[in-house]
Amino acid sequence: MKATRLEAFSDGVIAIIITIMVLELKAPHERELAALTRLLPIFLSYVLSFVIVAIYWVNHHHLIHLAQKVDGKILWANLHLLFWLSLMPWVTAYLGENHATPLAVGLYGIVALASSTSFYLLRRSISCHHRNDEKLCTLHRRMAKKNFIAMGIYLVAIPLAWLFVPLALLLIAMPAVMYFLPDRHVEKLHEIA
Amino acid sequence: MKATRLEAFSDGVIAIIITIMVLELKAPHERELAALTRLLPIFLSYVLSFVIVAIYWVNHHHLIHLAQKVDGKILWANLHLLFWLSLMPWVTAYLGENHATPLAVGLYGIVALASSTSFYLLRRSISCHHRNDEKLCTLHRRMAKKNFIAMGIYLVAIPLAWLFVPLALLLIAMPAVMYFLPDRHVEKLHEIA
Amino acid sequence: MKATRLEAFSDGVIAIIITIMVLELKAPHERELAALTRLLPIFLSYVLSFVIVAIYWVNHHHLIHLAQKVDGKILWANLHLLFWLSLMPWVTAYLGENHATPLAVGLYGIVALASSTSFYLLRRSISCHHRNDEKLCTLHRRMAKKNFIAMGIYLVAIPLAWLFVPLALLLIAMPAVMYFLPDRHVEKLHEIA
Amino acid sequence: MKATRLEAFSDGVIAIIITIMVLELKAPHERELAALTRLLPIFLSYVLSFVIVAIYWVNHHHLIHLAQKVDGKILWANLHLLFWLSLMPWVTAYLGENHATPLAVGLYGIVALASSTSFYLLRRSISCHHRNDEKLCTLHRRMAKKNFIAMGIYLVAIPLAWLFVPLALLLIAMPAVMYFLPDRHVEKLHEIA
Repeated sequence: MKATRLEAFSDGVIAIIITIMVLELKAPHERELAALTRLLPIFLSYVLSFVIVAIYWVNHHHLIHLAQKVDGKILWANLHLLFWLSLMPWVTAYLGENHATPLAVGLYGIVALASSTSFYLLRRSISCHHRNDEKLCTLHRRMAKKNFIAMGIYLVAIPLAWLFVPLALLLIAMPAVMYFLPDRHVEKLHEIA
Repeated sequence: MKATRLEAFSDGVIAIIITIMVLELKAPHERELAALTRLLPIFLSYVLSFVIVAIYWVNHHHLIHLAQKVDGKILWANLHLLFWLSLMPWVTAYLGENHATPLAVGLYGIVALASSTSFYLLRRSISCHHRNDEKLCTLHRRMAKKNFIAMGIYLVAIPLAWLFVPLALLLIAMPAVMYFLPDRHVEKLHEIA
Repeated sequence: MKATRLEAFSDGVIAIIITIMVLELKAPHERELAALTRLLPIFLSYVLSFVIVAIYWVNHHHLIHLAQKVDGKILWANLHLLFWLSLMPWVTAYLGENHATPLAVGLYGIVALASSTSFYLLRRSISCHHRNDEKLCTLHRRMAKKNFIAMGIYLVAIPLAWLFVPLALLLIAMPAVMYFLPDRHVEKLHEIA
Repeated sequence: MKATRLEAFSDGVIAIIITIMVLELKAPHERELAALTRLLPIFLSYVLSFVIVAIYWVNHHHLIHLAQKVDGKILWANLHLLFWLSLMPWVTAYLGENHATPLAVGLYGIVALASSTSFYLLRRSISCHHRNDEKLCTLHRRMAKKNFIAMGIYLVAIPLAWLFVPLALLLIAMPAVMYFLPDRHVEKLHEIA
């Protein structure tokens, strides 16, 4: 299988995931502004998930780009990632409706952790094909570090949801923010790739 | 990232946005014609949104076509546009269900304004790559003018929604109509591109 | 715009239309076989719409294939077709829930008529580009005839829905059946194209 | 029609099928863990269907890859497969909500059987194009055997649903497990193709 087809299918699934999340933003039947303020947590959880899924899409492209050919291992590591991402609309809706509860925040954290872990596994299955290229390997390892940090943050946030919800939510949003901080290693990778 | 992949992903998201809006057109359980007339405002808001999103799709293609390569800035300007467009199904449903209320019309105007503003930002991030090509730059600026006018109309329409709803609705529909008026500058651009 | 991008976007929209129709097939909460028999008309209307939309997809491909380049007229004729097709899930749900009522059958017929009419308009906008190629023009005209017959059948079926529902339903299903009858003119076209 | 377009459309439909299934995982309004345990059967049926549809996607690619050109027969055999796959979200929801009932398990088995049968028919319509290539034909026949076994298992599982539900469920999950067992014949095919 060519990498382009894997990419096209993943793009399709990610495009659907990012778009159906908005279906949870139900149009309220009331006409007062109060109805909208009640929608605010649903809206905010939608924004957070939109950004997280968008980041996965961007990173996914950079990663697949590195694969010269797609074997069964990469294929299923990719489907594994798509499975966890496909649960994002569900935990987003749950977080939006029950925003301040430990269970909703904890669940969101679990799916975020599983997504970043499956992304890490996909990364590992692809990096195996580049053992000879020393430079790419080094950069690969550095990107993996960022992936690892995100996994660690989610891991801390999950139990924290049952202790102090606001901090857990803050931690869950952090990896998305971290992504936008400039990183010269990744920029170097782009120059090469 | 190649422009073609950005285009393919954006096409996917826009295709889903334009299609899931129809899910709001719920099949009424009554069998009388009266049930249909009650659906009319939902249908009309669907038509308006279909045309607006379709225009974005057409313009989006012309714009991305100009980009020789896609950097992080263009990537996120594009995702920013897709975010606001993804709210279209929601404000369409809200407008359809509460058609004559200031809040529904105002909200629709806000998302329309945010969409056209994000399109303008995307346009700016792309035009930076064409500083050397004088001709393209001139045309770019002229297309930006149309974009600006739409932003201005939406900006006027939003507060008007609380004063006189029908006029606000008329204003919101205007940029879509304006698009179909012939414009020889854009045609020139097509001849070049 | 290249024909391939128009095709890719149309494919995306048609793929979504054909798939979201199944969302109307709600899982019944009852456990008896009777719940399923009540779902039968919804299922049958889904089958009919699946076949009709699939036929549009196949014909759409053959048609776009003939266009050497896509101008604004073809672009909007295509979006016009997609608009009417996007209403298929809605009339399918309505027909499924109120299967024996004149209004549901009539509405389905109206959307079917509008779809085939917009397909005819798309065909006309494309054939203009082939005035020089005599052979293609002849075949084009023959395919248009089939399109015309379908439009005529739908036109008869719509008022019939208020007189005798079963016959109207039969007529609406006919163009889909007609499509599968062998047609040596179209086969000739395929050999050329 | 080129095989790439058939592939792209099928990818689109399969991507939507695999993603809209998650819409059945409704966010519970309760905040207790008990609400989640009630969701467990819905989640498990989602996992099963995700894996089954993903396997179809992977196999579909290998199959279409073998077709040198797409004729009407392949086209409609493919649409026939997509039709049955499009019913997966529905039987998944039904299985999730009524997990221990014979009817839900039996229906799931019927759609699984129809899907594998339509895949077999698609395989047959494609293999006709490879009569001259002896080696490909042999491998084709071996892959068809696996397809046949799955059909047989589903055929046994359907009546079993009314006798002993857990065993029927186990049988329905078996072909998906079987797929992951190593098979040197298929690997050989990949080396050739």
